[in-house]
Amino acid sequence: MPHLQAQLLVATGMSPKITVELLRKLRQVMKGSKYVAEPIQAYIIPSGDAHQSEYIAPCDCRREFICGFNGSAGTAIVTEQHAAMWTDGRYFLQASQQMDNNWTLMKMGLKETLSQEDWLISVLPENSKVGVDPWIIAADQWKTLAKALSSAGHSLVAVQQNLIDAIWEDRPARPSTQLSALGLKYTGLRWQDKVMQLRAKMAERKISWFVVTALDEVAWLFNLRGSDIEYNPVFFAYAIIGMNSIRLFLDEKRTADPVVRDHLVLTEPSKAELHVECLPYQRVHDELQAVCSTLGPKDKVWICDKASCALTQAIPKMHRAPIPYTPLCLAKAVKNPTEIQGMRMAHIKDAVALCELFTCRNKIKPSDKITLSLLFASSQQKDFVGLSFPTISSVGPNGAIIHYRPLPETNRTLSLTELYLIDSGAQYRDGTTDVTRTMHFGTPTDYEKECFTYVLKGHIAVSAAVFPNGTKGHLLDSFARAALWDSGLDYLHGTGHGVGCFLNVHEGPCGISYKTFADEPLEAGMILSDEPGYYEDGSFGIRLENVVLVVPTKPKYNYRNRGSLTFEPITLVPIQLKMIRSELLTQKERDWLNDYHRKCQEIIGAELERQGRKEALDWLIRETQPIM
Amino acid sequence: MPHLQAQLLVATGMSPKITVELLRKLRQVMKGSKYVAEPIQAYIIPSGDAHQSEYIAPCDCRREFICGFNGSAGTAIVTEQHAAMWTDGRYFLQASQQMDNNWTLMKMGLKETLSQEDWLISVLPENSKVGVDPWIIAADQWKTLAKALSSAGHSLVAVQQNLIDAIWEDRPARPSTQLSALGLKYTGLRWQDKVMQLRAKMAERKISWFVVTALDEVAWLFNLRGSDIEYNPVFFAYAIIGMNSIRLFLDEKRTADPVVRDHLVLTEPSKAELHVECLPYQRVHDELQAVCSTLGPKDKVWICDKASCALTQAIPKMHRAPIPYTPLCLAKAVKNPTEIQGMRMAHIKDAVALCELFTCRNKIKPSDKITLSLLFASSQQKDFVGLSFPTISSVGPNGAIIHYRPLPETNRTLSLTELYLIDSGAQYRDGTTDVTRTMHFGTPTDYEKECFTYVLKGHIAVSAAVFPNGTKGHLLDSFARAALWDSGLDYLHGTGHGVGCFLNVHEGPCGISYKTFADEPLEAGMILSDEPGYYEDGSFGIRLENVVLVVPTKPKYNYRNRGSLTFEPITLVPIQLKMIRSELLTQKERDWLNDYHRKCQEIIGAELERQGRKEALDWLIRETQPIM
Repeated sequence: MPHLQAQLLVATGMSPKITVELLRKLRQVMKGSKYVAEPIQAYIIPSGDAHQSEYIAPCDCRREFICGFNGSAGTAIVTEQHAAMWTDGRYFLQASQQMDNNWTLMKMGLKETLSQEDWLISVLPENSKVGVDPWIIAADQWKTLAKALSSAGHSLVAVQQNLIDAIWEDRPARPSTQLSALGLKYTGLRWQDKVMQLRAKMAERKISWFVVTALDEVAWLFNLRGSDIEYNPVFFAYAIIGMNSIRLFLDEKRTADPVVRDHLVLTEPSKAELHVECLPYQRVHDELQAVCSTLGPKDKVWICDKASCALTQAIPKMHRAPIPYTPLCLAKAVKNPTEIQGMRMAHIKDAVALCELFTCRNKIKPSDKITLSLLFASSQQKDFVGLSFPTISSVGPNGAIIHYRPLPETNRTLSLTELYLIDSGAQYRDGTTDVTRTMHFGTPTDYEKECFTYVLKGHIAVSAAVFPNGTKGHLLDSFARAALWDSGLDYLHGTGHGVGCFLNVHEGPCGISYKTFADEPLEAGMILSDEPGYYEDGSFGIRLENVVLVVPTKPKYNYRNRGSLTFEPITLVPIQLKMIRSELLTQKERDWLNDYHRKCQEIIGAELERQGRKEALDWLIRETQPIM
Repeated sequence: MPHLQAQLLVATGMSPKITVELLRKLRQVMKGSKYVAEPIQAYIIPSGDAHQSEYIAPCDCRREFICGFNGSAGTAIVTEQHAAMWTDGRYFLQASQQMDNNWTLMKMGLKETLSQEDWLISVLPENSKVGVDPWIIAADQWKTLAKALSSAGHSLVAVQQNLIDAIWEDRPARPSTQLSALGLKYTGLRWQDKVMQLRAKMAERKISWFVVTALDEVAWLFNLRGSDIEYNPVFFAYAIIGMNSIRLFLDEKRTADPVVRDHLVLTEPSKAELHVECLPYQRVHDELQAVCSTLGPKDKVWICDKASCALTQAIPKMHRAPIPYTPLCLAKAVKNPTEIQGMRMAHIKDAVALCELFTCRNKIKPSDKITLSLLFASSQQKDFVGLSFPTISSVGPNGAIIHYRPLPETNRTLSLTELYLIDSGAQYRDGTTDVTRTMHFGTPTDYEKECFTYVLKGHIAVSAAVFPNGTKGHLLDSFARAALWDSGLDYLHGTGHGVGCFLNVHEGPCGISYKTFADEPLEAGMILSDEPGYYEDGSFGIRLENVVLVVPTKPKYNYRNRGSLTFEPITLVPIQLKMIRSELLTQKERDWLNDYHRKCQEIIGAELERQGRKEALDWLIRETQPIM
């Protein structure tokens, strides 16, 4: 329940934020001498925090504060004359509704859209200075941007005091919530063993130190969880791990918590190499500099190349070993048997909550009320902690806003004539869930069914794909699109993302996307989403999402003994049969669907029975009948 | 005919080259003071020439000279203790047969294979110097390598005198063949117009100079062809293009040729901005330095980031604007209507030659004799110039050597019990061809047919794919593999490459590959190959290749008005029906095949009739019957 309240607080209206006065103030501090040594001609406001988190705490919502757009991805740039904001296809509609006409929406992914550097070069006067907070820009972005700007005669400068904070009068404080420790039952591995495994990898690559900057990596490593950031059970912290030393940087008052003291064995003398030294959060930069001052000429320090420019540059270049994905990111992505079992359990509970919700479907409600009903149903499940992201519950045209959240101004009531899309997820102590279903409670049009069926074909194509060990996820992205492409349709977002285990709902280093980011090869034990969609602005949105586990499979042959992999759906929620034009499915696709529904009936049916949810069980059985 | 002779000269035997003495000599010059200021601990021998050509002249076959492996891709590295050679999946078998045991084969693409830099770091003593010829290493490779080495305490050094040349006693001279000029009938555009279009793109991007380093770009720009490099109708040259100046660097005696003088209008005074100044080939570095010394602070020079390190570094960093693909590379890839028509004609002629060849199939011959028969058949066609690459004509297990060339030691005679693979291509003055067919002249096994059918399904999946404008080729690669992957099979090479128009058979910037190189989006008018395969070491090889043209298509819908593209096969040669297990094909695939064969019969049949090739026509008609 507290999660939902906070969610409503965070959400701003769909009417645009008036930014005239804010922009005036910002341009004033850009020119003034109080915060910048020399006037800057442009200021970049990235969407991240100092940990490059995707979801951020209210105190870090600087890009939203300045432009009004509150989606999860976007970068604002303000110059003396212009204000522009870059975001991707998920958010074009939402951003255009939330920003006033002081702002230009830069639609990323469209051919005609200039990149941030090209745009800056096109609008800036000669020899301009472009400022950015070095704590919230990643080192690799800094490098690319600095290079592009300097090649055009401009320069990128680090502005230590954040200029948004300077003009943000009632900026909230940085949260410091209660931490909880996760036992072996949930993690499958003690934090001490995780540290030892990490050190083994460091030794293998001759690395002396490793700076942990991502919040989910700190949380995973120490088997600790917090709630500093809405929906993500993480807490503000850094860690510096050496071969004989563990330094954890976090709000000091947290180290007084007996739960934390016990879990980290702070109270009793432990083996020196596993002794955790807790230091204040703000000390990380100075401490890292101190560590670096003791290094021998061959010592190397691992840091993620997406870590902040400020921390990265605290490591002298000769000692710096930037990596695209840290060993923790990789270790965390491949779930151990305990984590896999936890994720399965979490998704069974989630399916029960959704079945309960759909059972009540005849009582037509506004879409925001549905999210409340779902929250209520989920919260009855064991080990429920909160939502894993704001529930997307959209009726008709709202479905075309890919990350829509129900709001009083735009809320629509479920009807018998419009599509309904619900994308929801929860945090349970044993796992994180994420599922999307699109349904119609009356009679869908042939066109809606046609589009839905193409999306389903794409979903199945990925889910049932067999591929060799070592294949990267981006090679599977087109499978999800082929049926849509055949009819001239497409969707402007990736097909899948890694999912954490009682951690962030979006995590690296694996994914399924047309963007060829440097994703790591898929491995058995990785958990991803499979979520193609189709969206028509002003009409409807369709998305079909399961969380899937990468599993080994044994096809007929085994070329060069490489072995093969496929996916096993962990999400077990019926796919609405009335939306499917089964004549467009191949026999193989029909078999997949029937097999999936049989599994839903078996596994979720048993749990509904155990929980005595008769009405939901009846609904489940009706919705999982085989098709011919 | 001269092409074939030269081909046999270039090909070395399949028995390994004995390299003990050569390696001893190389290690001596690596240590000595004659060529290197200080001893170097490793020397890198890339496979390219100073233009980063894929196919190279005999004088540039340094990697082959030192290790014996003569495939088109591979890098050798020699240290005081070790000698290792990296190549990709096409060449694993061939390389292992051609190199003696002084060499370690490094199989690229396998997870356990170290990269060149990681290998160097693992074998080198501390503070080592790694040498390389700056003219044959690309600037981008130099940068990556230099960075990796320096981060491990080593350094990369430019060795001006090539150390292989220093020990290569009878190294052939650099060729300087007769040039020929291509008229409008073949090119569709005068070279003067190409220069003007190039300058328009330079102006658009505020670029003052452009250094043309790739041989096919020089040839395309000036509508000139040569035969300096086997199979590629190019000639050794560089060009430096300014807004009012054109400098062409080539062997001086060529500028005395009246054909060249007329074509480039060297004899009469022309408009200054279209006046070509011819300079000696060797002067390019000094001339580029001279040009750069005149630059204003804002002047920028375009150079491909794959150009040689030596030329790239001749441009001061502040003026250097490296680009992954040059505007000429992009312009050349999108064929104009004259070029498209030429490519169609070339493929019709090629199909006639292949039909002729297959007509004689009952006279069982050794596979090298078949290449001669094909050469004879092709050479009877109008505007035939030569082959576009060494014909791959392989029986049974030789088919698993992906780039196999028939040689006396390994040559096999066609039989009724083994698969036969022929991959051939020719240069006609109107276009370049490239086609592969796999056939059985007796009764193929069920397994061979099964594998062939999967390859065919992959071929069709790419060829019939519909995809949005702006899609990059690598997003289509998995379509070619899906049927193979489903059965645990795969192939270790890309699916398609760009094809030049009477130019190189492999060209950028488009391609279809699992390697996510920075390929440019597919555009209508681009021409690529579609060539999935399947190979079993020691048994057989299957490949099915058509050259295809990117064409606009109009599916049912048109999402966001982006428009859609698909492929149209330009190659029109029957696909052997006896190899197909048609029950494994979908109806859509059967329709594609029948439609394709109908087109072959119609278009190639008409040409066979016109040329009075009755026997071949009968064969064509038999081989293009529809399947049910």
